[in-house]
Amino acid sequence: MANSEFDTIAAISTPAGEGGISIIRISGEQALPIAQVIFKGKSLASVASHTINYGHVIDPISRAEVDEVMASVMLAPKTYTKEDIVEINCHGGLVATNQILQLLLSNGARLAEPGEFTKRAFLNGRIDLSQAEAVMDLIRAKTDKSMKVALNQLDGNLSRLIKQLRQDILDVLAQVEVNIDYPEYDAVEEMTTKLLQEKAAELQQIIKQLLKSAKQGKVLREGLATAIIGRPNVGKSSLLNNLLHEDKAIVTDIAGTTRDVIEDYVNVNGVPLKLIDTAGIRETTDQIEAIGVERSRKAIATADLVLLLLNNNEALTDEDRGLIDDTKDVKRIVILNKTDLPTKLDHAELTDLVDAADIIETSIVNDDGMDQLANRISDLFFGEGIETNSNSVMVTNARHIGLLNQADAALSDVQQGIAAGLPVDLVQIDMTRSWELLGEITGDSYQDELLDQLFSQFCLGK
Amino acid sequence: MANSEFDTIAAISTPAGEGGISIIRISGEQALPIAQVIFKGKSLASVASHTINYGHVIDPISRAEVDEVMASVMLAPKTYTKEDIVEINCHGGLVATNQILQLLLSNGARLAEPGEFTKRAFLNGRIDLSQAEAVMDLIRAKTDKSMKVALNQLDGNLSRLIKQLRQDILDVLAQVEVNIDYPEYDAVEEMTTKLLQEKAAELQQIIKQLLKSAKQGKVLREGLATAIIGRPNVGKSSLLNNLLHEDKAIVTDIAGTTRDVIEDYVNVNGVPLKLIDTAGIRETTDQIEAIGVERSRKAIATADLVLLLLNNNEALTDEDRGLIDDTKDVKRIVILNKTDLPTKLDHAELTDLVDAADIIETSIVNDDGMDQLANRISDLFFGEGIETNSNSVMVTNARHIGLLNQADAALSDVQQGIAAGLPVDLVQIDMTRSWELLGEITGDSYQDELLDQLFSQFCLGK
Repeated sequence: MANSEFDTIAAISTPAGEGGISIIRISGEQALPIAQVIFKGKSLASVASHTINYGHVIDPISRAEVDEVMASVMLAPKTYTKEDIVEINCHGGLVATNQILQLLLSNGARLAEPGEFTKRAFLNGRIDLSQAEAVMDLIRAKTDKSMKVALNQLDGNLSRLIKQLRQDILDVLAQVEVNIDYPEYDAVEEMTTKLLQEKAAELQQIIKQLLKSAKQGKVLREGLATAIIGRPNVGKSSLLNNLLHEDKAIVTDIAGTTRDVIEDYVNVNGVPLKLIDTAGIRETTDQIEAIGVERSRKAIATADLVLLLLNNNEALTDEDRGLIDDTKDVKRIVILNKTDLPTKLDHAELTDLVDAADIIETSIVNDDGMDQLANRISDLFFGEGIETNSNSVMVTNARHIGLLNQADAALSDVQQGIAAGLPVDLVQIDMTRSWELLGEITGDSYQDELLDQLFSQFCLGK
Repeated sequence: MANSEFDTIAAISTPAGEGGISIIRISGEQALPIAQVIFKGKSLASVASHTINYGHVIDPISRAEVDEVMASVMLAPKTYTKEDIVEINCHGGLVATNQILQLLLSNGARLAEPGEFTKRAFLNGRIDLSQAEAVMDLIRAKTDKSMKVALNQLDGNLSRLIKQLRQDILDVLAQVEVNIDYPEYDAVEEMTTKLLQEKAAELQQIIKQLLKSAKQGKVLREGLATAIIGRPNVGKSSLLNNLLHEDKAIVTDIAGTTRDVIEDYVNVNGVPLKLIDTAGIRETTDQIEAIGVERSRKAIATADLVLLLLNNNEALTDEDRGLIDDTKDVKRIVILNKTDLPTKLDHAELTDLVDAADIIETSIVNDDGMDQLANRISDLFFGEGIETNSNSVMVTNARHIGLLNQADAALSDVQQGIAAGLPVDLVQIDMTRSWELLGEITGDSYQDELLDQLFSQFCLGK
């Protein structure tokens, strides 16, 4: 059912650039009539839903032909937005694509804001807010694991869990109301506080479980900020190249695809590493590679993970010791490189300074030890490993994490209130707050500013 | 009718990048069965042609869900390639898009070469070679005028003209054969040479006309290489910014569209200027702008058009005179800038050195004189103006121009041969050559290497 309050919007839904196909998407009650003004071919109003129709786009004023196109007609409600949608597929040139959009805009459509199609899918009730957010996570996913988490969320698994928690809270609150309204029964107050206490603890347990998944989820979603540091000539750029080269799951072998777009992400056992300051490493060659002390400090400060390279073929230097000391408080892996060359580094001294579990021996040029490194990285962040099977729910979104933390705190307040002997109606307020906070995740309760802010992060045409 | 000799190919047809929609296109006899292996939804074999079908892409081995998609089914022969086509529209993420392609490739499809879909449209007889080339011109068009020329060619107007010319040649050759076979008639030899003579002259006339359009066409297609030169602080970067800013037909006001992709093209009255060495100008600000002498020379040497700026508010310097001299043999416009400031430049001296018609007075900061500049540019290259109405045929393609020039030469050979009294069967050879050369334009006669070379310039997925 199209929401008739909405005007008809249009945007280019394919990425900017020269490609084989460009799509201009139109959604709203007037989608068909507006598209028809510029479309020469079948009458779009008379074709069946979900059909593809050959024709030409014609400038209705100059009568000039703009492009040869296919017009896909999808009628409400079985569409992305639950509104009528027309998608014009054209030959993929920048000029023609822009011109078709301009023609639609001058014939009654409005330029869609970023994310507005998805916003309508939410406002028209096809998906909830966490699913809408999953759409964007899906588009931005850096590895197949992060994609699966997003897809799982898009399928509504998080939503279902949250809705269940909210229903449980509502049930308790209803029971509390009954107890309060019928105080003639014995020991009502005691029963009520006991119920609240137990339920709050039980719900908190589930929320804490979700929050435990959040750190991993955030890494999957945003990537693990990773710094590669070490003295000159220890193999930093070899490591970088090796990681980039091994990055088969993201960077396919297909010429001209996505390499430059995401080249600072590498996929290690499904964990997206977001490499910090690779420019500093790349600018240099292996022989003269250098990353300044200041630059190293900065990289360490912003990193979730530090890969510190040492040279097995040279004795430890003060600079090495300095870097070991600088990284003692962060998650780090010390990579003892060049094991193909004679050992000159004092291993006993090294294991005095660094936990043996954090040391990986490699010969990067021979591709030795790289599997151990990859395993160490995923162990460090995912312990037993992330299976992300289709049913396990993982929270990845900073907004969701914030709301879960607040709901967690509200449930603590419930329990502390009861312990402190506060009256039930005061305790009830905290319980209700946890219900509202969870509702913001799915968008059952939301504010317009939230929507504006959230959807503005989307890409155009989605 | 699908050509069953061809295997089934697949590629990503939308530009690389994050967008609202990505399309993976599959073409060939096995398009439906291969797509079906990874598609969970309706049975694609049983749906009607030209329908859009909701479903999910599932990895057939791990059973993991990859994305929520729409599968467009288009059955041969009414498709882009004249083969069965399935287009999978997914959410537009890099990982999911690549993964879907990989699944198709591991289930029987082959990765399409650049332009291979269009090559099949040609090999399967849906379009001829000049139309296939027009597809790419359309995608690469820089202004609406260049787009119209490409579209006109895609619609087959050039093809029809060429086919007509070839038919005329065939008719003559047939007539010549008849005359030779029945030499019992009087004055056959004379009649035959007269016919050949007249026809060759007539055809040559049409070809010369086409070639006349070619220079303009090439400019429309490839852009006019334009250098902006002048002394420091004369207004080069102001001119650059003004041109870029005025570039409304290409660079729309839509945030996030195409600006960076084509920012070195500006659209002046429909003429795409391809600006040379804008980096050299941009690096500097107006105050300290500087473009070295060597750099200027280089720019002049490669330019189709030089815009030479002078400062109305200063006397001519030796450097100015040097630049005027350096550009005397190229198409140039001398822009006398800063007319808002007092005139200190000796106009009499200037008009001694430069044809008055080539001087435009401007105050770029006040946007004065810019229309005159634009008009002068289009006059200089298109005289009466290019209307590019939907029927006038314009040749734009370097390959076509080369072939037309050769055909022109062959027709000259015909006439010279007759004038020199060569035997008819020798003259016939040149006439036949012109027929073959024209055939290469439309691809009626072609060699495999030509096709390989030509389609390899296409973008992936087209």
